[in-house]
Amino acid sequence: MSHSISDIASALGAEAFGDTDLRITGVAEPADAGGDDLALAMKPDYAKGLGQGAARAAMLWEGADWQALGLEAAIVAPRPRMAMAGLTRMLDPGPGYGPGIHPTALIDDSAELAPDVAVGAYTIIGAGVRIGAGSIIGPQCHIGPGCELGQGALLHNGARIGPRVRIGDRVTLHPGAAIGMDGFSFVTPEENAVEKARASLGDAGETRAQSWVRIHSLGAVEIGDDVEIGCNTCIDAGTVRPTRIGSGTKIDNLCHVAHNCEVGRDCLFAAMVGIAGSTTIGNNVVFGGQVGVTDNTSVGDGVVAGGASVILSKVPAGRVILGYPATKMETHLEMYKALRRLPRVLADLAGGNKAVSKTPKSD
Amino acid sequence: MSHSISDIASALGAEAFGDTDLRITGVAEPADAGGDDLALAMKPDYAKGLGQGAARAAMLWEGADWQALGLEAAIVAPRPRMAMAGLTRMLDPGPGYGPGIHPTALIDDSAELAPDVAVGAYTIIGAGVRIGAGSIIGPQCHIGPGCELGQGALLHNGARIGPRVRIGDRVTLHPGAAIGMDGFSFVTPEENAVEKARASLGDAGETRAQSWVRIHSLGAVEIGDDVEIGCNTCIDAGTVRPTRIGSGTKIDNLCHVAHNCEVGRDCLFAAMVGIAGSTTIGNNVVFGGQVGVTDNTSVGDGVVAGGASVILSKVPAGRVILGYPATKMETHLEMYKALRRLPRVLADLAGGNKAVSKTPKSD
Amino acid sequence: MSHSISDIASALGAEAFGDTDLRITGVAEPADAGGDDLALAMKPDYAKGLGQGAARAAMLWEGADWQALGLEAAIVAPRPRMAMAGLTRMLDPGPGYGPGIHPTALIDDSAELAPDVAVGAYTIIGAGVRIGAGSIIGPQCHIGPGCELGQGALLHNGARIGPRVRIGDRVTLHPGAAIGMDGFSFVTPEENAVEKARASLGDAGETRAQSWVRIHSLGAVEIGDDVEIGCNTCIDAGTVRPTRIGSGTKIDNLCHVAHNCEVGRDCLFAAMVGIAGSTTIGNNVVFGGQVGVTDNTSVGDGVVAGGASVILSKVPAGRVILGYPATKMETHLEMYKALRRLPRVLADLAGGNKAVSKTPKSD
Repeated sequence: MSHSISDIASALGAEAFGDTDLRITGVAEPADAGGDDLALAMKPDYAKGLGQGAARAAMLWEGADWQALGLEAAIVAPRPRMAMAGLTRMLDPGPGYGPGIHPTALIDDSAELAPDVAVGAYTIIGAGVRIGAGSIIGPQCHIGPGCELGQGALLHNGARIGPRVRIGDRVTLHPGAAIGMDGFSFVTPEENAVEKARASLGDAGETRAQSWVRIHSLGAVEIGDDVEIGCNTCIDAGTVRPTRIGSGTKIDNLCHVAHNCEVGRDCLFAAMVGIAGSTTIGNNVVFGGQVGVTDNTSVGDGVVAGGASVILSKVPAGRVILGYPATKMETHLEMYKALRRLPRVLADLAGGNKAVSKTPKSD
Repeated sequence: MSHSISDIASALGAEAFGDTDLRITGVAEPADAGGDDLALAMKPDYAKGLGQGAARAAMLWEGADWQALGLEAAIVAPRPRMAMAGLTRMLDPGPGYGPGIHPTALIDDSAELAPDVAVGAYTIIGAGVRIGAGSIIGPQCHIGPGCELGQGALLHNGARIGPRVRIGDRVTLHPGAAIGMDGFSFVTPEENAVEKARASLGDAGETRAQSWVRIHSLGAVEIGDDVEIGCNTCIDAGTVRPTRIGSGTKIDNLCHVAHNCEVGRDCLFAAMVGIAGSTTIGNNVVFGGQVGVTDNTSVGDGVVAGGASVILSKVPAGRVILGYPATKMETHLEMYKALRRLPRVLADLAGGNKAVSKTPKSD
Repeated sequence: MSHSISDIASALGAEAFGDTDLRITGVAEPADAGGDDLALAMKPDYAKGLGQGAARAAMLWEGADWQALGLEAAIVAPRPRMAMAGLTRMLDPGPGYGPGIHPTALIDDSAELAPDVAVGAYTIIGAGVRIGAGSIIGPQCHIGPGCELGQGALLHNGARIGPRVRIGDRVTLHPGAAIGMDGFSFVTPEENAVEKARASLGDAGETRAQSWVRIHSLGAVEIGDDVEIGCNTCIDAGTVRPTRIGSGTKIDNLCHVAHNCEVGRDCLFAAMVGIAGSTTIGNNVVFGGQVGVTDNTSVGDGVVAGGASVILSKVPAGRVILGYPATKMETHLEMYKALRRLPRVLADLAGGNKAVSKTPKSD
């Protein structure tokens, strides 16, 4: 599959220069590019690489002199990463799942699939499932009874959906994603150590050893449109009402969203984010990798949390936070700088030296 | 499937009021409840919601006036979350795995399954496996050679058990759980940087770059009764003796228990807990989400660790801990409060101001 | 399967004593050992256990008097853990995957498998895949189109490889590993809160709520020789060039290596390690469990990071680090000791007491 420079530029809303009929078959970093590749040189730093590779065409930074770089054709995009989105979509050969329903797919007679839905080998689709037009259900998937998927779903191989999950349009699930399984909700016959510790802020008191009794999850999961869920990520079913993921939200690999959580629209959770039960996350929230959020709290719209932040209490909208416990980034940095100075300050104080050093030791 | 108010109350050991022959088919939050739902209004806060929804029956807080709330029937339970356990169990329609052995299940001739065991499609059961009465092995599972499962096991779709794992009665494994795979145990031919750093508390010294050689795991895993293991959670095989999970312990999604660990009875590990090799965890231990425990240490009975705590040394029984490194919650909070004040204190000291502020900056 | 003491000693390059024709069938801890087990007593501490068990042969510490311990035969190895590697390899009965190609395996006609490759039940192998001699592809695996695997691969049940992944010789993938799936790369049409917060170190400013647009991953993954990847671990595809894992590197369960990362040779990542996009890790790097590394940074050769360290900036070669943010272990310990003293110091300062205590409160 090849594309002309003019077709690419027009698809991206970008400007094309030179021999715009030149056709490319792939993209490459400048130094690795062959003659049929579009070299990606969206910053002046990459100019040197163009000389090392064999690209005849490149996507360049604004203001670049494509002729001086020895190219036959060039594309210039005002927001390069946005252009990358369109370009990589055009060139993605996809996962290779075939069309049609594989003869080994086991689809319950009561399931209703739009006529063009593809279902891969060894996939199992339960009773009463409904799947919208244009959906591709990869091989080795499992869709429990009563699930509804909208149009244009893409389930990669090995994705798993529990009973009665409702999913909007154009949702992508990656391998090993587990949506709508039982929430982790247990109770003891009498008050237990955790309840006592929470009530007293730290004192578990004398509690009798007890066994845990499961509270079943009847509420399933509800996912909006244009959601993407990464490999081996788990979104647990709600207890009574559904756990909800808003439209446009993207969740990376190995994340966990517990029962009864409500996640807003257009959030971005990097890998290994964990959100405990019954917590509410606003819209346009961005979490770096390994962020944790405690249960029964809320995070406001537009919050940005740096990697590995641990959110232990309510966060107001718009805040940029970091740390364990997570605080305003500014507060966190001040505390950290002070802590770096502290060993020296204490040594000075002990030595009777009141001239407290302001220079932290270098790391 | 519908249940009368009197049947529910009697199953829960709770009191019923009003038209106890009224039948319900589901549960709902008060404001969302339809006429056939039992509304869950176990705190006075929910009274308003009852007026917004259409429930004719509700589970209420102790002392509630069901008639004044406009209900036809009511259930009152002394410990509402405990009542939820019984109620949700009654109403759970389950995962929809059929009875019997699916013709595509591949079961080794030497495996011994009790006559009523159900096995789902595309599941593979290895040589010498034994499975007790009443067990449901979902579809797409894999059970390695020599495993023994007790009575009443429930393996959800895609659960995986390695060779020679022994599992007690009434154990539930969720999708993607991986039990009994090889532990992560490697050695270098000569002393390596980690060994040197541990011996010297931080100095890796001059070590030759070496390759890692695997120590195979021969010890498998041993799991007690009434254990539940979450989606994509991994319990690795022991090296020589089994990794052990005690009866009654519940482990959430995406957790990791490394080789040779011994976990006691009735523990509760929230999602993303990781326990490194050869560590011992007592009974009735509760870990919040993302808690980590270092290798070769021990955590006493009844310990409660807050979310994302990192346990780097032995913890005595009964302690409530938090932080990285985890310390007594009280100590942790004192240190954190002091750290919040520190930037101001250092500024005051540098300015010659000895009247040290006691008020931390607000976050 | 049994082995004579002399055969074992000679395979391990160790010394044998006593009745070296004695045959053993397994290994055990001293107190658990039966008459056909080789007891593992590689430290004097284990001597007592030998008396409690029934072992006739043992692997002993250097200088042990095997006759005084009541044994009939003994093996003494200079580096016991290294001997364990050889010993456990000899005794490992393996996962029980049969030879040959199971009739339910679906292998594309264009795939090229060496004649002795084994493929398990319900496994799917895509178009153009090539697999080298001696490889064992377990059941329920998925190998996407265009993948290349070298000789001696071992894919455990349920391992998943995305399109066009290239893998060297003797690579092991554990159940649920997901290699080469789409990277988590999204862009907004205009500058968003994260870009603003990064540029300003914390101020997200006024940003319009926007939706995320996917950048597809065209670069796949490239894995060297002798690599091992744990259960449910994810290695995402690169955007343009491959994400790379160097030869000899071992990665435990539930880890995440994001798109465009380059990981060197002979690294060791314990469970739950997460590495964000476009980060470079040197050779012989060792990460404890739950370590996180931010995006677009680099970690030098031979770095050792303690459990749950969060690496937020470049780390020079050879450093031993700990903490969040990760610093030199020595610096981290100094800061932590000072922080432990801080509440008392502040109390003293507030009380006008300039004799600052040097004794931290005990935990």
